[in-house]
Amino acid sequence: MHGYHPRENARLQDQAGTLVDLLHADTAYPPGSVVLEAGCGVGAQTVTLARRSPDARLTSVDISADSLAQARRTTDAAGLTNVQFQQADIFALPFAAESFDHVFVCFVLEHLRRPVEALAILHRLLKPGGTLTVIEGDHGSTYFHPDSRAAQRVIQCQVELQRLAGGNALIGRQLYPLLVGAGLEAVHVSPRLVYVDASRPDLVDGFTKKTFTAMIEGVRAAALEFGLIDPEAFDTGIRDLYRTAEADGVFCYTFFKGVGRKQSSATRATLPS
Amino acid sequence: MHGYHPRENARLQDQAGTLVDLLHADTAYPPGSVVLEAGCGVGAQTVTLARRSPDARLTSVDISADSLAQARRTTDAAGLTNVQFQQADIFALPFAAESFDHVFVCFVLEHLRRPVEALAILHRLLKPGGTLTVIEGDHGSTYFHPDSRAAQRVIQCQVELQRLAGGNALIGRQLYPLLVGAGLEAVHVSPRLVYVDASRPDLVDGFTKKTFTAMIEGVRAAALEFGLIDPEAFDTGIRDLYRTAEADGVFCYTFFKGVGRKQSSATRATLPS
Repeated sequence: MHGYHPRENARLQDQAGTLVDLLHADTAYPPGSVVLEAGCGVGAQTVTLARRSPDARLTSVDISADSLAQARRTTDAAGLTNVQFQQADIFALPFAAESFDHVFVCFVLEHLRRPVEALAILHRLLKPGGTLTVIEGDHGSTYFHPDSRAAQRVIQCQVELQRLAGGNALIGRQLYPLLVGAGLEAVHVSPRLVYVDASRPDLVDGFTKKTFTAMIEGVRAAALEFGLIDPEAFDTGIRDLYRTAEADGVFCYTFFKGVGRKQSSATRATLPS
Repeated sequence: MHGYHPRENARLQDQAGTLVDLLHADTAYPPGSVVLEAGCGVGAQTVTLARRSPDARLTSVDISADSLAQARRTTDAAGLTNVQFQQADIFALPFAAESFDHVFVCFVLEHLRRPVEALAILHRLLKPGGTLTVIEGDHGSTYFHPDSRAAQRVIQCQVELQRLAGGNALIGRQLYPLLVGAGLEAVHVSPRLVYVDASRPDLVDGFTKKTFTAMIEGVRAAALEFGLIDPEAFDTGIRDLYRTAEADGVFCYTFFKGVGRKQSSATRATLPS
């Protein structure tokens, strides 16, 4: 049973005061590095990323002009000057091969029909020796006390809706094979378990209620429209999720963070052609 | 989202080179302290516990004389001299109230019909200010890639068999309410997620195959006898669990460790009677 060395993860979790830190504290790019954020959405991660790497130059792209406009307002409001935005499809990015020192992707692969192809495209954009960092959740990592079939069922509605939309809400656990499959080297994946009980009231409110349960609550209309569940069963499931936020409740969810490296020129030179 | 401070857990995980370390590295009792291990079984944890607290005096009890004999052989073979064994039922322990500085319980509550009552009994045996440490797994924390309903079903057989025997294979997530319910104070629970992919070959072999899947494989006869599943479905599930140990596979399981403290006399004195 040797070989379990979660050192870097643990060291950085050590600094984690918030969920944002838990996910992002170990990502900081060196001064002068040129970084691509692929799929920035409304900039939820962009602010953290740009703040943590103040002397890196960040290019954040998204397919939606509306999202980009919001992201720009958010980074402007935060006084950030090291981010430029560009509208682009992740499958048709307007950049030459080996344009970036590092690439960052957060909560994007879960929405894509062809995640390995997207990673392979991003891999090509990396300079040799550069890193590709991916963060994804996994709804199948969710469990709680009191346990409830009704609550499991509403989560399953979200998983099914994401599947119908071409995505995968269980993608977190797959980061290792996805990154290896896209040709990255030295792939390292570390789980980031968010454990919530009544001794952590900020997470009870901020994660169990306002992040996870609110997200599931948000798919009510779609779940009913697709006939996945009836209204009473949905509302029972949501009630049972909120129940886990009471004094004797417990809630667990795991995010996964994977980092892979593009083969460096030196390494490639030593391989037979 | 403030308030997530997994510092002590992270610091100690930092030292974790093995699964044993992941579970036990943050348990060491001071010289001279008198410690009860309740439910030592064949001594699997006793050796680790006694080695990590060489100057504490450990009393390890179990209901089974056969298990105790094996435990004694194991600690003798390890050259440990700070452990004494005693046969006793956890619900009828032959010790006076406030006999122990600390109490340790590992993989025991999952087998008990009345876990809070057991914890309350152990709580009474603690001196004021002493700690009660509990470690349990949670089979509902298991997920993997490739996902498989057949594999989920064989795990569910184990959960159901444990339930039929009066136990609870999903107890890990409940440590917080159980410890609070038994009257412990300053209860702190930390999850210990074992994440396994092909980059961690020792865990692929030592955990996914030889610990978890072997355990599930071991309930085949009982699952068939109780009519929980047919032989082909069981064997498919086991095959799919082994499948997660291949090069593109991923396996996740979480243990929970909870520590609570008995109210100290000083604290009690300041409370209204």
